[in-house]
Amino acid sequence: MVVVNVPCMNGGGGETSYAKNSNIQRTVMSKAWPFLEETIKDMFSSSFPGCFNVADLGCSSGPNTLLVVSKIIDSIHKLYHQVNKKLPEFQVFLNDLPGNDFNSIFESLPDFYERIKKDKFGPCFIAGMPGSFYQRLFPSRGINFIHSSYSVHWLSKVPENLENNKRDIYITKSSPPSVCQAFWEQFQRDFSAFLSLRSEEIVSGGRMFLTFLGRSIADPSSKDCCCLWELLTKSLIQLANEEEVKSIVREQGSFNLDTFESFEVNWDPSDDVNNKSFVFNKDRCGQNVANSIRAVTEPMLASHFGNAVIDPLFARFATLVAEHLAVEKTKHISLVFSMTRKQHAQPDLDI
Amino acid sequence: MVVVNVPCMNGGGGETSYAKNSNIQRTVMSKAWPFLEETIKDMFSSSFPGCFNVADLGCSSGPNTLLVVSKIIDSIHKLYHQVNKKLPEFQVFLNDLPGNDFNSIFESLPDFYERIKKDKFGPCFIAGMPGSFYQRLFPSRGINFIHSSYSVHWLSKVPENLENNKRDIYITKSSPPSVCQAFWEQFQRDFSAFLSLRSEEIVSGGRMFLTFLGRSIADPSSKDCCCLWELLTKSLIQLANEEEVKSIVREQGSFNLDTFESFEVNWDPSDDVNNKSFVFNKDRCGQNVANSIRAVTEPMLASHFGNAVIDPLFARFATLVAEHLAVEKTKHISLVFSMTRKQHAQPDLDI
Repeated sequence: MVVVNVPCMNGGGGETSYAKNSNIQRTVMSKAWPFLEETIKDMFSSSFPGCFNVADLGCSSGPNTLLVVSKIIDSIHKLYHQVNKKLPEFQVFLNDLPGNDFNSIFESLPDFYERIKKDKFGPCFIAGMPGSFYQRLFPSRGINFIHSSYSVHWLSKVPENLENNKRDIYITKSSPPSVCQAFWEQFQRDFSAFLSLRSEEIVSGGRMFLTFLGRSIADPSSKDCCCLWELLTKSLIQLANEEEVKSIVREQGSFNLDTFESFEVNWDPSDDVNNKSFVFNKDRCGQNVANSIRAVTEPMLASHFGNAVIDPLFARFATLVAEHLAVEKTKHISLVFSMTRKQHAQPDLDI
Repeated sequence: MVVVNVPCMNGGGGETSYAKNSNIQRTVMSKAWPFLEETIKDMFSSSFPGCFNVADLGCSSGPNTLLVVSKIIDSIHKLYHQVNKKLPEFQVFLNDLPGNDFNSIFESLPDFYERIKKDKFGPCFIAGMPGSFYQRLFPSRGINFIHSSYSVHWLSKVPENLENNKRDIYITKSSPPSVCQAFWEQFQRDFSAFLSLRSEEIVSGGRMFLTFLGRSIADPSSKDCCCLWELLTKSLIQLANEEEVKSIVREQGSFNLDTFESFEVNWDPSDDVNNKSFVFNKDRCGQNVANSIRAVTEPMLASHFGNAVIDPLFARFATLVAEHLAVEKTKHISLVFSMTRKQHAQPDLDI
């Protein structure tokens, strides 16, 4: 099973679509936003290029897709205004697998352009770049800023020695240590390859800002990587912790790690201290969580186990999550990394 | 009616889709190919950039879309091989209106990349760039080569003074001269704007290669711009002739016109001297022509006149074309223009 050919999100706008079930991802983005703003501020402390090339990797298709773009542009604009510089041109590449629903994104672009025109944004040109981020996506040394939220924890494939074992494509409490080890090694290979590929595409001094689903090292119980929702998502997601990610960045060697942060989001993101109207209802929360997991795993699970399992699987899953949440409120851990491309060995190519 | 919001081609892969009814466009491309090859050869007579940015404007969605890309790349590769240069990286932007079926193109990319890998092509990165080519599509001075086949004859809108007159959105034998004049003036404005926009996006010395549906100046009868299929397509297509196009290029002033060519293609492209198996059957030919016109006009006609008219309209149209072809074999005239961007007033910006 090669993930390159399996779209990761449910397309369209129906009840089980990613577009309608992407609250967790939006909540994560909004929590990561202050760190992203810091990165952008730091990036423009000295130079103000006339054209700024941005890539969003794993953009998916839904309300979050263009939200990232407008946040980034808005933030950069403010900095240019502060120093009275002419606004740069933006070339934005929205990347996801070729099966992603790019048509939906593109159809929303005329409205998006109207909106940013009203806000007096500078010229902005949005392209779709289909492909796997475990392969090269862009020509050499042309991208100034790479953003990716909740995507890089997806592995490129099921670790090889587990590929023919359908029972064990996920990690559970009962998984032998060798399964965990195989997933960890696959993540090491994948993330190191990801860094090498991006290091070719990004200009010297260019930035990369990544948000992952991860594990906390402060909370030893989370080392026990075997919770209900992991039963479904660990299939191809590796939950790394801070130190593991840092060590891969150091060893790969192309990037300086500038900042690291982590934060928590409840499984059901509407269960938030800032949401005063929230009343806990285990069945509704169970359903919300099941829907959000279904939106990102259905095409992959269906391609592996067949379509017939999907409805009963997620009905059962919603019940299990509800029972779990009635006993214990559980959170996702998000890790945020901001890094800078070291100087390339040779001068940047003209493009 | 603003064309920016109306997709010009029938999407998907059904019987009336553009993907299944784009033989004319393929025949035109193959006839234009020797001229395109000459342009590319000329472009690389002195400099061999490391990265080459190509845009195909009005790429549509069908078997022709990636055919153009592979032809261009293949031709450039041969030139690099001849002089023993390292193959360049290609960044290709496929442009069409936001309603174009980009998903279909993107889903065919993994196979396309496999194929060009086998042919030992260099790195190639294909992006989709949705938008109208009557607006800016790209940042300043980054594109090396712009290609557009059978797209630029589409006007940006119905000329203003005709917009509320549903009877006269097409030009027929009975149209008053003022209608023809209004369409001609709209084409002048549109094509001049097109040249200005592209002149900003293309590098100094960059090339543009355009193929249009046009009129011959050698054949006075073609001045009588009122044939059956024009009844449908003239709605938003302006059939300009060589001298008219040349004068607009000269007046706009950003490009030097290098070469001009014209050639003919039968209405039914299977009716060709090289197609030995062709046997004329007026009904089949009438149907073929009606299908090819339907594939490129249905969304626009449906948005203007409603869906209900489409089936009876094209059934009647097929019959009329069949009757016409039984009496007279009729051809499309294609005009081919190759031009070079003059030096920009200021040095090229870094991108």
